[in-house]
Amino acid sequence: MADKTLDTLFHETLKDIYYAERKLTTNLRKMARAAQSSDLKAAFETHEDETQTQLERLTQVFDMIGKRPRGKTCDAIEGIISEAQEIMEEFKGSPAHDAGLLAAAQAVEHYEISRYGSLKAWAVELGMDDAAKLLDATLQEELATDKKLSDLANGVINAAAQNAA
Amino acid sequence: MADKTLDTLFHETLKDIYYAERKLTTNLRKMARAAQSSDLKAAFETHEDETQTQLERLTQVFDMIGKRPRGKTCDAIEGIISEAQEIMEEFKGSPAHDAGLLAAAQAVEHYEISRYGSLKAWAVELGMDDAAKLLDATLQEELATDKKLSDLANGVINAAAQNAA
Repeated sequence: MADKTLDTLFHETLKDIYYAERKLTTNLRKMARAAQSSDLKAAFETHEDETQTQLERLTQVFDMIGKRPRGKTCDAIEGIISEAQEIMEEFKGSPAHDAGLLAAAQAVEHYEISRYGSLKAWAVELGMDDAAKLLDATLQEELATDKKLSDLANGVINAAAQNAA
Repeated sequence: MADKTLDTLFHETLKDIYYAERKLTTNLRKMARAAQSSDLKAAFETHEDETQTQLERLTQVFDMIGKRPRGKTCDAIEGIISEAQEIMEEFKGSPAHDAGLLAAAQAVEHYEISRYGSLKAWAVELGMDDAAKLLDATLQEELATDKKLSDLANGVINAAAQNAA
């Protein structure tokens, strides 16, 4: 197994996040449709557009390591998305629906933040500065989305879930 | 479904993270045993101790809302932990093992950061200041653990995975 070095890990994790981002495009659309608040709906739609750009960046990184873009099942994103689906089903039509859905989206963001953070650090270690820049661009977008969702939660969504009680 | 308000969501999410923390205690032990680096092993052991305190805080919060501490299956943590197990199996004995395991632990931390962040915000919204303080204490520990793991990755672990190549 001595051949499994940092480049193997980098490639495997790239496949993991590629699968996750593809899975997300479909699910962000579902989440935008399910959102009751127009602000939350708009936030999901914006992030769906960003996800397309993030997928293109991943394609470029695959290209830089001479591999074709390919995903492999990411159990983490499957689990996180299944929790979002559970909220959409169990809280449908109820005052706390959007607060739960927004929190589920933040769990997605945090998974991505951890993966892009690791991938960027590994790209630097491997001397792939261009790849590191692309991965950092996505990391900054994920951090900004998480911050935007927190502001939305603290600004209107959580209060709406509580005031409706 | 109009009865599903913020307190329902708070209680459901509390059960979710309680399950996740319990699941983690066992798995952090496995991860500490598997770590090749003594620094990483020590970081996992310290965090295992912290997790016990975090579980006690959750028990106190359950008590504050008049419920008994009970978990419900958290698909997200199941998926994230299954990725950590995959790393331990597929990278066993290889130079990039610890870099992968450390990254998997950061995915766990980020899941917890997102959950405790939401729970704390909801506790504030619900006027439960004492619960918010307890949840914030854990949130700060999770953020510190994530920072410590990043420092360890950038300091020694990633370089070791690469230099061994």
